[in-house]
Amino acid sequence: MLASDFASLLRWRRDVRHFLSAPVPAELVEDLLRQAALAPSVGFSQPWRWVLVESPLRRAAIADNFAAANSAAQASYPDPQALHYSQLKLAGLREAPVHLAVFADPSTATGSGLGRRTMPETLTYSVVMAIHTLWLAAQVAGLGLGWVSILDPQQAHATLEVDPHWTFVAYLCLGWPAEPHPDPLLERAGWESRQPLTVLLR
Amino acid sequence: MLASDFASLLRWRRDVRHFLSAPVPAELVEDLLRQAALAPSVGFSQPWRWVLVESPLRRAAIADNFAAANSAAQASYPDPQALHYSQLKLAGLREAPVHLAVFADPSTATGSGLGRRTMPETLTYSVVMAIHTLWLAAQVAGLGLGWVSILDPQQAHATLEVDPHWTFVAYLCLGWPAEPHPDPLLERAGWESRQPLTVLLR
Repeated sequence: MLASDFASLLRWRRDVRHFLSAPVPAELVEDLLRQAALAPSVGFSQPWRWVLVESPLRRAAIADNFAAANSAAQASYPDPQALHYSQLKLAGLREAPVHLAVFADPSTATGSGLGRRTMPETLTYSVVMAIHTLWLAAQVAGLGLGWVSILDPQQAHATLEVDPHWTFVAYLCLGWPAEPHPDPLLERAGWESRQPLTVLLR
Repeated sequence: MLASDFASLLRWRRDVRHFLSAPVPAELVEDLLRQAALAPSVGFSQPWRWVLVESPLRRAAIADNFAAANSAAQASYPDPQALHYSQLKLAGLREAPVHLAVFADPSTATGSGLGRRTMPETLTYSVVMAIHTLWLAAQVAGLGLGWVSILDPQQAHATLEVDPHWTFVAYLCLGWPAEPHPDPLLERAGWESRQPLTVLLR
């Protein structure tokens, strides 16, 4: 692969919150999940657990969960930052055609525990890398992904009724993006700017 | 970018433990870190902190840390699994020309806490995605990366003498790989096999 192609992929990848309503073919979603499973995982444990959320009731519960967490977040800022916060669109839950929850299974026997004895958190990190792989694969396919972290995770876990021993890692929106942007929404909105590279030497 | 090029990148990315001794130009490492900083981060917090480990004394301390953690891990398996474990090469610390430790700064003001009020762990997850971005960028450049998780993280943190409030996320080896492989070392060695895709519907 050309280095310039990969750098361009990274530059145009966004957290997408503006989706078109057009559906995403099920085979395309499955293909993306197969690519995501090529992510690194500690001890080859492959601890990612994918949950496609299709029930309108469950989707509505997640949207309510987001709305409550988002209001509480807004209220935690002083003015005028609270006003600025309220003007940001931070999730595309109502529009995105595909909702995907992602969990880690900390009790998986796959990999026989190799590599995570002293740093068990690497199991969840493996799931995060699978999500990031999915994110880039989606971008290559012309799709956009948004990670909704403004949620009460326990409540989301209960809504989705999966194994209580799993770890809730992420709730993702997937769909065709309304318009591509080379700059993050929070940069465009003046919330935060890109930081310079700093490297410590030891 | 062609979908087949990206899929091929994913298929050939490995956790590399066999390195050539040839040095990696400093400008190339810097270019890879600039690409890694294009990773998603919660609230655009960019919480990654990079530490290039060049001191031979510190490298030796990390190698000793690994050796102790690896012996303890081996002792935790029953025979014949312990013997199998002992035959696996799980780090390239002695050969890799570049050692890079990666931390998260949980107290960063960048991003003003946006998106991580209910799920503060997303800050560390952002650093994990930057590491994964670095991993893929390295692969595009023909380099190999290995993530060494068989370490006592507190001891590694102390060895590196960085801000005690930072979170130790990863210790990485970077260099030119001895030979590319399309299958994970743990699969080739018969330790674990690739799992089928399963998706729950909710």
